[in-house]
Amino acid sequence: MSAVINCAAYADGHRIANLKVNDIGKILQQTDKFVWIGLNEPDEALLAEAQQEFGLHDLAIEDAHRAHQRPKIETYGDTFFIVLRTAQLQEGQREITFGETHFFVGVNFIVTVRHGSTFSYSDVRTRCESTPHLLRKGPFFALYAVMDAIVDQYFPIIQTLGEELEKLEADVFSGKPNRETITQIYQLKRELLEIKRAVSPLIDICNRLMRFDSTIIPEETRPYFRDIYDHAIRINEMIDTTRELLTSVLEVNFSLISISQNEVSKKFAGWAAILGVPTAIAGIYGMNFEFIPELNWRFGYPVVLVFIAGTCVFLYRHFKQSGWL
Amino acid sequence: MSAVINCAAYADGHRIANLKVNDIGKILQQTDKFVWIGLNEPDEALLAEAQQEFGLHDLAIEDAHRAHQRPKIETYGDTFFIVLRTAQLQEGQREITFGETHFFVGVNFIVTVRHGSTFSYSDVRTRCESTPHLLRKGPFFALYAVMDAIVDQYFPIIQTLGEELEKLEADVFSGKPNRETITQIYQLKRELLEIKRAVSPLIDICNRLMRFDSTIIPEETRPYFRDIYDHAIRINEMIDTTRELLTSVLEVNFSLISISQNEVSKKFAGWAAILGVPTAIAGIYGMNFEFIPELNWRFGYPVVLVFIAGTCVFLYRHFKQSGWL
Amino acid sequence: MSAVINCAAYADGHRIANLKVNDIGKILQQTDKFVWIGLNEPDEALLAEAQQEFGLHDLAIEDAHRAHQRPKIETYGDTFFIVLRTAQLQEGQREITFGETHFFVGVNFIVTVRHGSTFSYSDVRTRCESTPHLLRKGPFFALYAVMDAIVDQYFPIIQTLGEELEKLEADVFSGKPNRETITQIYQLKRELLEIKRAVSPLIDICNRLMRFDSTIIPEETRPYFRDIYDHAIRINEMIDTTRELLTSVLEVNFSLISISQNEVSKKFAGWAAILGVPTAIAGIYGMNFEFIPELNWRFGYPVVLVFIAGTCVFLYRHFKQSGWL
Amino acid sequence: MSAVINCAAYADGHRIANLKVNDIGKILQQTDKFVWIGLNEPDEALLAEAQQEFGLHDLAIEDAHRAHQRPKIETYGDTFFIVLRTAQLQEGQREITFGETHFFVGVNFIVTVRHGSTFSYSDVRTRCESTPHLLRKGPFFALYAVMDAIVDQYFPIIQTLGEELEKLEADVFSGKPNRETITQIYQLKRELLEIKRAVSPLIDICNRLMRFDSTIIPEETRPYFRDIYDHAIRINEMIDTTRELLTSVLEVNFSLISISQNEVSKKFAGWAAILGVPTAIAGIYGMNFEFIPELNWRFGYPVVLVFIAGTCVFLYRHFKQSGWL
Amino acid sequence: MSAVINCAAYADGHRIANLKVNDIGKILQQTDKFVWIGLNEPDEALLAEAQQEFGLHDLAIEDAHRAHQRPKIETYGDTFFIVLRTAQLQEGQREITFGETHFFVGVNFIVTVRHGSTFSYSDVRTRCESTPHLLRKGPFFALYAVMDAIVDQYFPIIQTLGEELEKLEADVFSGKPNRETITQIYQLKRELLEIKRAVSPLIDICNRLMRFDSTIIPEETRPYFRDIYDHAIRINEMIDTTRELLTSVLEVNFSLISISQNEVSKKFAGWAAILGVPTAIAGIYGMNFEFIPELNWRFGYPVVLVFIAGTCVFLYRHFKQSGWL
Repeated sequence: MSAVINCAAYADGHRIANLKVNDIGKILQQTDKFVWIGLNEPDEALLAEAQQEFGLHDLAIEDAHRAHQRPKIETYGDTFFIVLRTAQLQEGQREITFGETHFFVGVNFIVTVRHGSTFSYSDVRTRCESTPHLLRKGPFFALYAVMDAIVDQYFPIIQTLGEELEKLEADVFSGKPNRETITQIYQLKRELLEIKRAVSPLIDICNRLMRFDSTIIPEETRPYFRDIYDHAIRINEMIDTTRELLTSVLEVNFSLISISQNEVSKKFAGWAAILGVPTAIAGIYGMNFEFIPELNWRFGYPVVLVFIAGTCVFLYRHFKQSGWL
Repeated sequence: MSAVINCAAYADGHRIANLKVNDIGKILQQTDKFVWIGLNEPDEALLAEAQQEFGLHDLAIEDAHRAHQRPKIETYGDTFFIVLRTAQLQEGQREITFGETHFFVGVNFIVTVRHGSTFSYSDVRTRCESTPHLLRKGPFFALYAVMDAIVDQYFPIIQTLGEELEKLEADVFSGKPNRETITQIYQLKRELLEIKRAVSPLIDICNRLMRFDSTIIPEETRPYFRDIYDHAIRINEMIDTTRELLTSVLEVNFSLISISQNEVSKKFAGWAAILGVPTAIAGIYGMNFEFIPELNWRFGYPVVLVFIAGTCVFLYRHFKQSGWL
Repeated sequence: MSAVINCAAYADGHRIANLKVNDIGKILQQTDKFVWIGLNEPDEALLAEAQQEFGLHDLAIEDAHRAHQRPKIETYGDTFFIVLRTAQLQEGQREITFGETHFFVGVNFIVTVRHGSTFSYSDVRTRCESTPHLLRKGPFFALYAVMDAIVDQYFPIIQTLGEELEKLEADVFSGKPNRETITQIYQLKRELLEIKRAVSPLIDICNRLMRFDSTIIPEETRPYFRDIYDHAIRINEMIDTTRELLTSVLEVNFSLISISQNEVSKKFAGWAAILGVPTAIAGIYGMNFEFIPELNWRFGYPVVLVFIAGTCVFLYRHFKQSGWL
Repeated sequence: MSAVINCAAYADGHRIANLKVNDIGKILQQTDKFVWIGLNEPDEALLAEAQQEFGLHDLAIEDAHRAHQRPKIETYGDTFFIVLRTAQLQEGQREITFGETHFFVGVNFIVTVRHGSTFSYSDVRTRCESTPHLLRKGPFFALYAVMDAIVDQYFPIIQTLGEELEKLEADVFSGKPNRETITQIYQLKRELLEIKRAVSPLIDICNRLMRFDSTIIPEETRPYFRDIYDHAIRINEMIDTTRELLTSVLEVNFSLISISQNEVSKKFAGWAAILGVPTAIAGIYGMNFEFIPELNWRFGYPVVLVFIAGTCVFLYRHFKQSGWL
Repeated sequence: MSAVINCAAYADGHRIANLKVNDIGKILQQTDKFVWIGLNEPDEALLAEAQQEFGLHDLAIEDAHRAHQRPKIETYGDTFFIVLRTAQLQEGQREITFGETHFFVGVNFIVTVRHGSTFSYSDVRTRCESTPHLLRKGPFFALYAVMDAIVDQYFPIIQTLGEELEKLEADVFSGKPNRETITQIYQLKRELLEIKRAVSPLIDICNRLMRFDSTIIPEETRPYFRDIYDHAIRINEMIDTTRELLTSVLEVNFSLISISQNEVSKKFAGWAAILGVPTAIAGIYGMNFEFIPELNWRFGYPVVLVFIAGTCVFLYRHFKQSGWL
């Protein structure tokens, strides 16, 4: 698969030509057109070519080559460099796979660079091309469209983790203290932290796209970034709520384990007493003294048996009543 | 039930006409009148009509169609778009039902869009119409009136949850460690989090309505939003206090369980000792050695019995004194 | 008792006349005089009268009628509306009673409105009148004087709670785990939260009185509000410190309970072993085998007794040494 | 000892005269000179005299008379009023004694007012006089010199508390759960809170001395306050680190107590089983049935003894292996 | 080894001469050249010389002489003084060694001062000299190069600590409560705190280098500091995540210990019951009553044996089923 997924020129919201990378320069000189190019794990040569065509900064190209960046937005002169982290739930699986997408956006171009396992942005492009009255707004609308698609991927993930929380709650309140449950709580916490780290910088990124004192971002595209901003805030809130509840679940679980321990202790103490009494009494009548009058008494044995049984029954009732058994 | 609950034109604080949606345009051109329209879960067609009449933004209409938004305020040109979450206690029940209301407010119109289980705002409208000297202030006063009604719904909820906290406190301090109580503490925490998420964005919303550098909001209506701001702050504070106390209750409960565990252990240890002594002594005189002088002694048995009883009494007193029994 | 406690006109720091409420208007027109009126739980009629005389805002009057406000400061045109919460320790009691005082302060008037159990401000007025060179600064000095009196009431309360903390510390470190202590820790935490809620808004209120870009507050009275600001900060800090220590006390208490539990377990285990050994050995010589040579040995019994005693002494020493007993 | 420790006029960095308090006025009129006066717990008369000579504000004088202020900086016209808390380790002791020093600093005077146990600032003055090229910078350099001396006193205290933390860590990790250790952790936490309360306002105070939009503080003395600012930040960081570690130590201690409890339980359970087996078996052969064939068997006794011993050895090995003993 | 590691003049990105310290002055007068000098633990005399040549501030020189500073940035006139903390993992060891590097950077000079165990910056210098088109940007590019090298040292450290966290997680979830593990968790927390203290001030330092309203830092070098800023943010985030997970690991460990304790208690209670039953029954038939009919019954012994065995088997199954064994 080529690293150049898609490279086209747009005018007035319509795709007017598919381009080769080295034809881009010509288009860029025409202010009424813009270029949208999608790369997938490009090699250094291709990035160097793109750098030359679009006039990108050394440091940004260096960053675009390395994955495992923190989500961020930077401006180099008139070009924005944006890094986002993508996340996807594998169909039918619990596993989350993270990826990364970088953007170079200028006054009449947008370059998307995908790293790691990310879904293709062809669908987004197709959707954009079907609404030329919107795509006409230029490369920042294209940026919005891709960012929106990326952020939308987080909602099903958050929902899945929310359901997992509910399962864990049910496990905990069912009252069986369980190593498995605790391990899962920890794993869930870990995943939430990772997602938070991917999403929370988005708030600042959108904020700057909404308000940045730059003349490159058209006024009319700014409300769109507010839309993503809202989404990012909501995801963040859901993560924070889930984390806080998770912490509470752990505490509650801990309290329930303690109560369980308490019950075990009481139960054990109760039964130990019930078993200890016959042992003690029988021990006394097992002594070998010559003169133990009761031993020669005809009804000694049944009376002692009854006494023992009575004491046991009494203790049993007593403990039952006070909630120890 | 029609989705258009009420649609009327107002002049100088008085209702001057009930309107059809497609008559709105005419009124909007007259700057001395304003339109107040209430919708309930409108379909796309109706929203599209409203969009056209009032000149609303695509993104806002899209939001207004979807429920499950985060409370927020946004400005699109001269129009404010506001999302609030409503909450209600079901009469005689413990259940809280959440809903959502969206507002479009412009210089001479206000549109309210209800989603989910919300009470009707007809009463609010009636109340407003009975004070024309206030309603004369325009659509932002109407906005205040509805927002105030929504926020007022939170107070009985908070109070109910506060009473629940007191019940839980009583449960905990009564000293019986209880799974039920712990589960309820968790549930209460969860509800508080949800309410907090609904109320806390209100502070920022009111702040912006109080101070926004917009000329659309008349100076004289601004103190009213400060009133709601105060309410939102108070609800927030009450939630935070309740949450903090809830956390303390859980900790305290945990300490009390530990103390209880401690008491069980001590009690058990005490009684085990009291039962262990006769068993041990009786065991010794149960040995079958031929030459155990005491066995042949006439008073061996009673003396041993007295010794055993004495030891038990001594232990009992000792444990009682040191607080183990 | 009349709801109008005191109503007087002041000029140059001296009381020049006692007024009736409906005479106020005349005084207010003279810029070299000011009016100081004290109300106690006024009814609606009186408030309406005051509203008319001083030209107060509807919303402020509405607030002034209701108690249970959050402490706050608001400006309505040239008038400040301030709400404070008062607190008092009942003489010789541990109970704190909360009240509320509202202020309306304008360029030449101050109205104080007391709600709930608050001490009378007559003493403050008398003290002010005894320093005319200060009272000459106008109604904001009177405001300062009353606020200072209110804030000063918090210091003995905080001190009492601090002493209570010390008592609780002593209880905890004395090492007897105690339900009572834990309940008291919780109650103290609750009270601190309530006081914090009453005091912490004061910081913001004073801040605004110190810096507000208003020309009504004379420059020379501003340092006085900084004085109250300092007091509020100090009370806040003391509350926060006490709360943090309280949390630590609870944790420490919990650790001490665990240690205690540990000690109980060790002690019990130790004595169980010491009692278990004679029982086991005696059991063996209590078996009824025909051929147990030791049983017929003359010194069997004493030797076994010595062996048992020796083992018990050895175990006792061993456990004592390793800290189990 | 007189309350006036030292009172001198300086010109060009050199002491030119020792003054009486009532001679100060003359010097203050000469802009090329400045006055440095040191007071120790002055009475009201002396403060009144100083107030008159230097033209100080009533509220500042009132504050200067009372100790137990919060560290703060205030400006009254052209005069700065600064409150600092001092702390000292008693030579060879663990005890920290706190004191307070107040400063009045104007364009050509500095007054230091000591309260409580503070070391004398004579040494600081001597050191300043030995570097006239620095002291020439005026009263704010003198202020810096004294503040620096005060802040330097905190470093050995922090270091001592850090060493104490290490001792507590060692105690905890040695694994003996200990009431003493826990009490000391709490005491250390308490002391850290108190020091933090004394030091943290310093950051704000220095910040204002570094940046204050006042023309009184000469530009060239400002870097000196940045130096103290750095020290205050460092002390604060050290306190925060120590507190955080202390919290961890408490948690870790708690975990270790639980592990210890676990071990005790296992050990006890193991030995109880090892002792319980012979007791149970011996009990069976201690029954008085007439027809127990084994009892008449010649090797019954040794075989049972061997069986009991074997079981005990087996259990011992089993528990040893699974880590219970 | 001399304290002057390297001292050279650069023009247009190329090294044009190696200098002696007292020749520096001549170069500094030529605005098209800059001096880069590297010192290693210089003595006071050398620092005094440098101070004179470069015109540095007293306080900065004093700081440069002392190690154990907090990372910071300060400006004295046209000179920046920067303190960084360095950290290195010893090859093949777990030990982290910290050091310190100070920088003086002016319009045409940079001085690096190393303290403690830091790697030499000769490699950095060589790398810079191999890219004259970058080094041409002047001393702030040299500053960037060295700072980058320092920050890059933190990544392998963080990774090592991350791996350690994973090892600890595995230890904890394997379920054997372990003093060793807990001690290691604490040590890891301690190290993370120390690294955080070294790295977190970097964020502020880079921020000021990126945005500082100074004309000395050339615009074109500013993006480089943003690069380091990003690194510092990432390291900080990784530390915070690791710390949060570490806290969770400790909590989880604690829960697992409690569960383990619970299991021990249940197991013990179960086996105690199973052993207690034969002891009690055998005790009864060990009584010496004359008239116990069962004793004379031929099948008494086998029947009792079967009964005892049956009860034990029943209890075993019961406990097994309810999860106690």
